[in-house]
Amino acid sequence: MNNTPRVTVWNEFRHERNNEAVAAIYPRGMHETIAAPLRAAGLEVATATLDEPEHGLTEARLEATDVLVWWGHRAHAEVSDAVAERVRRRVVDGGMGLLALHSSHFSKPFMGLMGTGCFLKYRVAGETERLWVVDPAHPVAAGISDAIELEREEMYGEPFDVPPPDELVFISWFKGGEVFRSGCAWRRGLGRVFYFRPGHETFPTYHDPRIQRVILNAVRWAAPPADLRPPVRGRREPLEPLG
Amino acid sequence: MNNTPRVTVWNEFRHERNNEAVAAIYPRGMHETIAAPLRAAGLEVATATLDEPEHGLTEARLEATDVLVWWGHRAHAEVSDAVAERVRRRVVDGGMGLLALHSSHFSKPFMGLMGTGCFLKYRVAGETERLWVVDPAHPVAAGISDAIELEREEMYGEPFDVPPPDELVFISWFKGGEVFRSGCAWRRGLGRVFYFRPGHETFPTYHDPRIQRVILNAVRWAAPPADLRPPVRGRREPLEPLG
Amino acid sequence: MNNTPRVTVWNEFRHERNNEAVAAIYPRGMHETIAAPLRAAGLEVATATLDEPEHGLTEARLEATDVLVWWGHRAHAEVSDAVAERVRRRVVDGGMGLLALHSSHFSKPFMGLMGTGCFLKYRVAGETERLWVVDPAHPVAAGISDAIELEREEMYGEPFDVPPPDELVFISWFKGGEVFRSGCAWRRGLGRVFYFRPGHETFPTYHDPRIQRVILNAVRWAAPPADLRPPVRGRREPLEPLG
Amino acid sequence: MNNTPRVTVWNEFRHERNNEAVAAIYPRGMHETIAAPLRAAGLEVATATLDEPEHGLTEARLEATDVLVWWGHRAHAEVSDAVAERVRRRVVDGGMGLLALHSSHFSKPFMGLMGTGCFLKYRVAGETERLWVVDPAHPVAAGISDAIELEREEMYGEPFDVPPPDELVFISWFKGGEVFRSGCAWRRGLGRVFYFRPGHETFPTYHDPRIQRVILNAVRWAAPPADLRPPVRGRREPLEPLG
Repeated sequence: MNNTPRVTVWNEFRHERNNEAVAAIYPRGMHETIAAPLRAAGLEVATATLDEPEHGLTEARLEATDVLVWWGHRAHAEVSDAVAERVRRRVVDGGMGLLALHSSHFSKPFMGLMGTGCFLKYRVAGETERLWVVDPAHPVAAGISDAIELEREEMYGEPFDVPPPDELVFISWFKGGEVFRSGCAWRRGLGRVFYFRPGHETFPTYHDPRIQRVILNAVRWAAPPADLRPPVRGRREPLEPLG
Repeated sequence: MNNTPRVTVWNEFRHERNNEAVAAIYPRGMHETIAAPLRAAGLEVATATLDEPEHGLTEARLEATDVLVWWGHRAHAEVSDAVAERVRRRVVDGGMGLLALHSSHFSKPFMGLMGTGCFLKYRVAGETERLWVVDPAHPVAAGISDAIELEREEMYGEPFDVPPPDELVFISWFKGGEVFRSGCAWRRGLGRVFYFRPGHETFPTYHDPRIQRVILNAVRWAAPPADLRPPVRGRREPLEPLG
Repeated sequence: MNNTPRVTVWNEFRHERNNEAVAAIYPRGMHETIAAPLRAAGLEVATATLDEPEHGLTEARLEATDVLVWWGHRAHAEVSDAVAERVRRRVVDGGMGLLALHSSHFSKPFMGLMGTGCFLKYRVAGETERLWVVDPAHPVAAGISDAIELEREEMYGEPFDVPPPDELVFISWFKGGEVFRSGCAWRRGLGRVFYFRPGHETFPTYHDPRIQRVILNAVRWAAPPADLRPPVRGRREPLEPLG
Repeated sequence: MNNTPRVTVWNEFRHERNNEAVAAIYPRGMHETIAAPLRAAGLEVATATLDEPEHGLTEARLEATDVLVWWGHRAHAEVSDAVAERVRRRVVDGGMGLLALHSSHFSKPFMGLMGTGCFLKYRVAGETERLWVVDPAHPVAAGISDAIELEREEMYGEPFDVPPPDELVFISWFKGGEVFRSGCAWRRGLGRVFYFRPGHETFPTYHDPRIQRVILNAVRWAAPPADLRPPVRGRREPLEPLG
């Protein structure tokens, strides 16, 4: 496993500029709050946002990215189809990891990788969430003991309309009566995808060191292995000698 | 799929004889309450209990069983190793389905099929449980809309120490703060295994028509296909002609 | 399980009109050869082809289809994006099954459901293929003993660039030295997807009764359950009463 | 991931002492040939064999083992039930990885973890095997390009009677007409299990640097994560504060 992946944190970066309450929590944008602990762990971290040219996700930027962290919410439709497709291909053909956070379940790159509608239930009530670890030995749960309790979060409820996860790490309990598969992993082509639920913009979730630890774990987990050999495709001869 | 499987409902049948509160709920034993709606659906249903010779699970009885429903709790250790192993083999080599109910997570046949410790958290507090459907198109969820709420049940909490289920159908929410993978499916050899969580003996859970529907669904799902061909094993010649 | 699903067999239907060798094998089109044994089994079967208006796949046609069988090869790009997306949505939101045959791995509906590139190796050499059953109790393998040998087929080789199948039923051996996951199942939203490899247009594969049996099995397996309840989505209140 | 796990290589170590042909290939025992490249990679490697007291697998030895590599064949029955159960528990409760090689599919610890019969087809014909990579981005395939060809090996054929692997890395092609899932991964409790097929005692398979690379990869993959927190079990109070 690659332990010092090159990371790009992508953020829609609109709420922080349009909503004072959000700006108070994330004055430099959520991407900077998410990036800081990754940098502190020794990773090389860039950021990119929706309103940059090509949303900051040029071919060169993606080529230099081992794991892309994505936060989007209201402006999913403003992400160009071309860039969304570029991200999807970089995952499946290039082995880039994708960590989709919170409302990014409806982002174009994530939906394109899933193939499903990605629907769910929701409620913004600032209620208690408990993220229970269901696979304690999974690398993404490293350092987390039993569960993480967040005092105030948005609720997401099942059924979560995604393909059955290849690995399920967290299930959330919400005080208002629902459950949700909050930490889900999929392998897609050469890349790995992780969805991590918490992070509504009006709550200080990404300042929480336990959430930061899970994000760091997920970034390391999603990075491509050090000596990945690209698959051989195309026409072959009978009993053709191997590579 | 075999829609009229031959079913045997196995019950420890001790609580009902030793505890008046349980006897009041299940006067003829839980096995009869579980069997009745299966019979009403046209299935051929036998019962068997711990204190019968060979626990009622002779070779002949198992040979005549397509799906075995199992409820055990306090007396798991009294099930003989030989009978437990007979059940396990009938699943993997004979294609019998096994539906393990509630505290049967610690039963010998289920544990032998899982290979893990099958631990969990618990609390008998008679609290609200909601079983959320996470895979609405799964045959075991047929006829169930969104969730089943049980007013009073025992709590089981994650992590549930079982192999990752091949299919996950229900996740439970408990008022006291926990979650649990309540409806889990595994394929093992030629057989299918389903674990369904609810059913503490001091609550009238198996009288609930929604729970009865899930059990009927699970029994049909777990039955072997009509035209199953046994696998061919053993020594072969090079380019040996096929069966 | 729904045992008499309504089926639509979709075929590109170009090779049969442009290539005499193919026309000799499938004079009325591959769709008719595929449809005939399904009809003989009592299923209600319609057909549709690329050059019909909307490729024969109107909203009404899909609404009346429980399982869609798809064969395409050279003209994937001529399938309109709108119709491909209509098919994908009918699977994930409507519970329609999709059985993708042979070169349909590159068809738009299948690729949209997978989210990956669906690449593979290939060789048209008319060589022996053996489809080994790896899950003998799977309903799609019912009636098939051990393996199916096809004297002459096109080769497809690994790695097959699809998400890890939820269920793997067949693995092919090719005389020229390759292997392939030939029978793969996925659950996607409310629908089920099955990929079945054999069926190159210049070989009489779909006249083979064993291949016909697998297709019949797969159609039955892919059909939605009889009493499927659509998932509840959207905004909820705290402790809102259930359904 | 733990990149320098402590490894114990366990070997039945009978063929090498009873059969001159095997002794010629593995004069110091297969365990030493398997251990050498792991040591060269910087891992701490011990060995243990059947005829040592407690088969060399004392509680202390297992406590000091992150990954156990197992090779057994003829003498599976001579492994004591107590030691086999100790190994199984160390995997599921202690997080030790288990790498089961070749005929170890029938070893007691592996069978106990699987819960199935672990049957297969076989033929000792010294024929060509090709291990195709089906998941090129899997860490166990790192450094392997497309496939590994072994000129002479024993054949194992499907169906392989194990639970559906959580991850499938290699599928073998055999010249005599069979296929086999040769590289399979399972998560069991806190531990990881990998089965790797090649290694019949009369062929020099473990001297092959590509096979050695896969074994090194699998050992690293199977090691427990660095900061694994043991699961919390047992009785809980309602809304009990979290750890």
